[in-house]
Amino acid sequence: MDLHQVNRHIMKVALGAIKADLVVKHGTIVNVLTGELIKDQDIAISKGWIAYIGNAEHTIGPSTEIINAEGKYISPGLIDGHMHVESTMLSVTEFSKVALIKGITSIMMDPHEIANVFGVEGVRLMHEEGQRLPLKVFTTFPSCVPATDDLEDAGASLDVAQIQEGLTWENVIGLGEVMNFPGVINGDAKMLGEIEATLKAKKTITGHFPDGTDQMLQAYIASGVTSCHETVTREQGLEKLRLGVYVMIREGSTWCDVKEVIKIVTEDKVRIDNILLVTDDVYPNTLVDKGHVNHVVRRAIEEGVRPIDAIQMATINVARYFNLDHDIGSIALGRKADLIIMKDLSKVEPETVISDGKVVVKKNKIIIDYPTFTYPPHILDSVKVGKTLNRDHFLLKSRANIGSTKVNVIKVIENSARTEKIQVELQVNDGIIQPDIANDIITLACIDRHHQSGQISLGFAKGFQLKGGAVASTVAHDSHNLLVMGTNETDMAFAANKLVETGGGMIVVKDGDVLGFVRMPIAGLMSDQPLEKVVKEVKRLDERWNELGCTMNAPFMTFSLIALTVIPDIRISNRGIVDVVEFKLI
Amino acid sequence: MDLHQVNRHIMKVALGAIKADLVVKHGTIVNVLTGELIKDQDIAISKGWIAYIGNAEHTIGPSTEIINAEGKYISPGLIDGHMHVESTMLSVTEFSKVALIKGITSIMMDPHEIANVFGVEGVRLMHEEGQRLPLKVFTTFPSCVPATDDLEDAGASLDVAQIQEGLTWENVIGLGEVMNFPGVINGDAKMLGEIEATLKAKKTITGHFPDGTDQMLQAYIASGVTSCHETVTREQGLEKLRLGVYVMIREGSTWCDVKEVIKIVTEDKVRIDNILLVTDDVYPNTLVDKGHVNHVVRRAIEEGVRPIDAIQMATINVARYFNLDHDIGSIALGRKADLIIMKDLSKVEPETVISDGKVVVKKNKIIIDYPTFTYPPHILDSVKVGKTLNRDHFLLKSRANIGSTKVNVIKVIENSARTEKIQVELQVNDGIIQPDIANDIITLACIDRHHQSGQISLGFAKGFQLKGGAVASTVAHDSHNLLVMGTNETDMAFAANKLVETGGGMIVVKDGDVLGFVRMPIAGLMSDQPLEKVVKEVKRLDERWNELGCTMNAPFMTFSLIALTVIPDIRISNRGIVDVVEFKLI
Repeated sequence: MDLHQVNRHIMKVALGAIKADLVVKHGTIVNVLTGELIKDQDIAISKGWIAYIGNAEHTIGPSTEIINAEGKYISPGLIDGHMHVESTMLSVTEFSKVALIKGITSIMMDPHEIANVFGVEGVRLMHEEGQRLPLKVFTTFPSCVPATDDLEDAGASLDVAQIQEGLTWENVIGLGEVMNFPGVINGDAKMLGEIEATLKAKKTITGHFPDGTDQMLQAYIASGVTSCHETVTREQGLEKLRLGVYVMIREGSTWCDVKEVIKIVTEDKVRIDNILLVTDDVYPNTLVDKGHVNHVVRRAIEEGVRPIDAIQMATINVARYFNLDHDIGSIALGRKADLIIMKDLSKVEPETVISDGKVVVKKNKIIIDYPTFTYPPHILDSVKVGKTLNRDHFLLKSRANIGSTKVNVIKVIENSARTEKIQVELQVNDGIIQPDIANDIITLACIDRHHQSGQISLGFAKGFQLKGGAVASTVAHDSHNLLVMGTNETDMAFAANKLVETGGGMIVVKDGDVLGFVRMPIAGLMSDQPLEKVVKEVKRLDERWNELGCTMNAPFMTFSLIALTVIPDIRISNRGIVDVVEFKLI
Repeated sequence: MDLHQVNRHIMKVALGAIKADLVVKHGTIVNVLTGELIKDQDIAISKGWIAYIGNAEHTIGPSTEIINAEGKYISPGLIDGHMHVESTMLSVTEFSKVALIKGITSIMMDPHEIANVFGVEGVRLMHEEGQRLPLKVFTTFPSCVPATDDLEDAGASLDVAQIQEGLTWENVIGLGEVMNFPGVINGDAKMLGEIEATLKAKKTITGHFPDGTDQMLQAYIASGVTSCHETVTREQGLEKLRLGVYVMIREGSTWCDVKEVIKIVTEDKVRIDNILLVTDDVYPNTLVDKGHVNHVVRRAIEEGVRPIDAIQMATINVARYFNLDHDIGSIALGRKADLIIMKDLSKVEPETVISDGKVVVKKNKIIIDYPTFTYPPHILDSVKVGKTLNRDHFLLKSRANIGSTKVNVIKVIENSARTEKIQVELQVNDGIIQPDIANDIITLACIDRHHQSGQISLGFAKGFQLKGGAVASTVAHDSHNLLVMGTNETDMAFAANKLVETGGGMIVVKDGDVLGFVRMPIAGLMSDQPLEKVVKEVKRLDERWNELGCTMNAPFMTFSLIALTVIPDIRISNRGIVDVVEFKLI
């Protein structure tokens, strides 16, 4: 509902002529507009909107629900300005429960993972799922699908016309992170076409500029991009902020940039209005162990930011950036009643969460009936290889019949997205190149799972230290083909077929048994289970990788990045082995 | 031009592949986004937009114009978030020259004066005049025309449908100050219809709430109004800011609120992002003696605000409020090159002004060829009474033929908009009520000048102390009918006929001679002459009032308010004498 549909009503509540639905009493308001903590305030709420602030006795009637917030803080609900729901491994619905419990009442999601599998339809489904939830879900339309043109095949693509159309959907608020910054700078027609479409629609262009020269950065911003979440140093943050960029400082599972970048606030003491605190990618265990945006806010406070300033950076600043501040992001008249009540401002763990004027969370529990969303069957059957795989499919043939041959091997680096290209001499038997388990050189495969082309690329990986069994994943950034890796071809075929059969996920198998499995039937990217179940499954998966010999931290994450053709040095894709530095298949 | 039309080009300038049109070198940038003064910076400009900031050597080519700003500050051009051009007595064109010289590169004007004379056509003409100028002119569509329904007749009215249509014009950015706050609070259909239309158009609703209870204020804001410029105390400012209102602190000719209200910054130390510095009404002599928004900024600095914060309140804060910050209000990439260069940040007197990348002012002079705007003839012939007036029209008849009678007299208060209702016994001769010049009771008339209805209301005024001659004005807030006042009917008729003949203005006459005259042929509200000429005419007018016996400060201003039927206690309108407290004609 929009304000013009309720303003006559809420005005009467302000005057006391109509009684409020809900009044939160005697709380200390975190006023992110004035920067004050204002004690002993009531907030009168009607039809989901804030109708009166102060002494609200005159708005209370016999049917008015009262919440006593004495001794507690009332803050605007937190807003995540940039995240990928798919990374949580949860559906939008299940994720929203977690988010609300943590005090997040709005998110801006960039669903480029599902877009790589199902294109516009995938974006639309996740977006629509989001519109039915007590969490406000806004969407930035993915801008870089596929990630590259020549080196791999994603399930779908998004062109300028589709993006232009998507930008007209309600609550699609802008263009998703423009990762192809070289393309933008070089005047790529598709990138500039998307930017133009977004500028004409008067929507927001979010950005992604991890590194480059100052001139490249300025050209990138001059195109119309207005934010960036890829800032890891204080100097970068200062540079971007000065140039007019909204700096999104993220703290998720892998990227923990608050400690460094928040120094622009605590040491350089810049104005904070164009600084946002976001999560980007958060894995399920991090949601449990730490939290979501509330955790990012807490981290900022731990690093010396005043609580009210940290909260400002995850509320009104985000709303202003996306031109939504007339509705959300502050406790003010004529704004939506999205509020969180908490005892300790530095802990950022709300006890009560109100969304659109309804209490949705009490004491860490969702207390309302929750909507469900049903995906169409084909979305749950997205792993299509066109045949049953067997061990022969995983045998890498050599030109020679016997002897040895030099091969390029993808060496992974723990906790990093980068890989190293090494060359190793491997034995050839009967025309088949033999892996070398003892030396941690194991077979790797990337199978097209979108187009049933039958394409299977084979290669070798080092660094995972598997001694037995096989693993497979349909989470394989960015194209999300079917990745399989293992010590023997039988287990590899078994793992792959299992994922085809069940609709995808991350699996560990040995000797024909499934040891660990995170089922992800939604596009092969997301589970349909609640957080607690997924966290258990992920934990077990981690343990099974370990049992098979891998000592890495979160190896399935490193595995899911092994096909990431935009990051050096060497990758596998459905088309073959990719030398990223040379930008070609080898 | 929009960014998407130039971004490819300015990106190449950032990279050095295309050379800049203009580079401002070695200046100290006033960065209102970070709150920093950044030394030794170049700004490269191309096609009117900022393309690069920093060391811009690589953007300089043989045709690049260079401005050396060493030892000087470069600030974003100032923006006036709320003003009435008509009050300057200048045309939009002539005013824009003054504004640019003072460093104002954008204004948001509320042309409700001309709307009261010529309705939509008047608004459209002033708005169109503004679109051709180097000053960026944005318009808020007047919301309260006429000011009242029953007590007077303006020249025109604006209804919801017309406002809805006007909101679609380019650079009409919202709804003009919603003065009828009682109407809003009481649910008046027209007011709420306008607010609804503006909310649906996603445009900004500017407000006006001088006084009232807290519940009235909150109801008013809950309707959708988001700003107010009628704040005179620190407490009011704090109250409104906390409730989510953008507080516009004004300093013009009559209203000088900075001293008091800026304490919310200097003493309460609130966040300043929702605070704007505006002018509202500025008379020509104030433009010369003090300035425009640059003066308001200077006043804030004089009261203890840091210069960069004061400048922020007249640049990016205004732009953000009206959702224009992607284009104006800061020195940042992909924003318009509206810049002012000055030596002393606290004086706020720019030496060079750049608008859309072109140097328009150098050393207090406009250096470009200036466009002219021609009003249609009927706009210059707006004083229509339908007959030639003579002394008989100004004789107030009594029921009795002789003796004395009690009359209501409008007593004016110097420097105030308020009047006092007094009762005086006056002589009657031959059925005509006699004024009492010796006791400063003189005849006052309000003549319909819009509809040629022939309506002439007569009454008496006290406080102007005229001993001879007569005065007349077609500036008569809010309906701008023809006001005439004097010591004898012959001079009154002469003054009135002169204004009819010449298209309006403010005049002083005696014994059939014109002593002082500010001609205002544009709708009877604005001169078509440059500032310097108008200032001279106004000065002479003031002196002539004084010669006739008036010792008041700026008496023509008090005179122009004598028909202001919304402010107590007693008024004259074309329909008669109005008791404002009782809300009726008497």
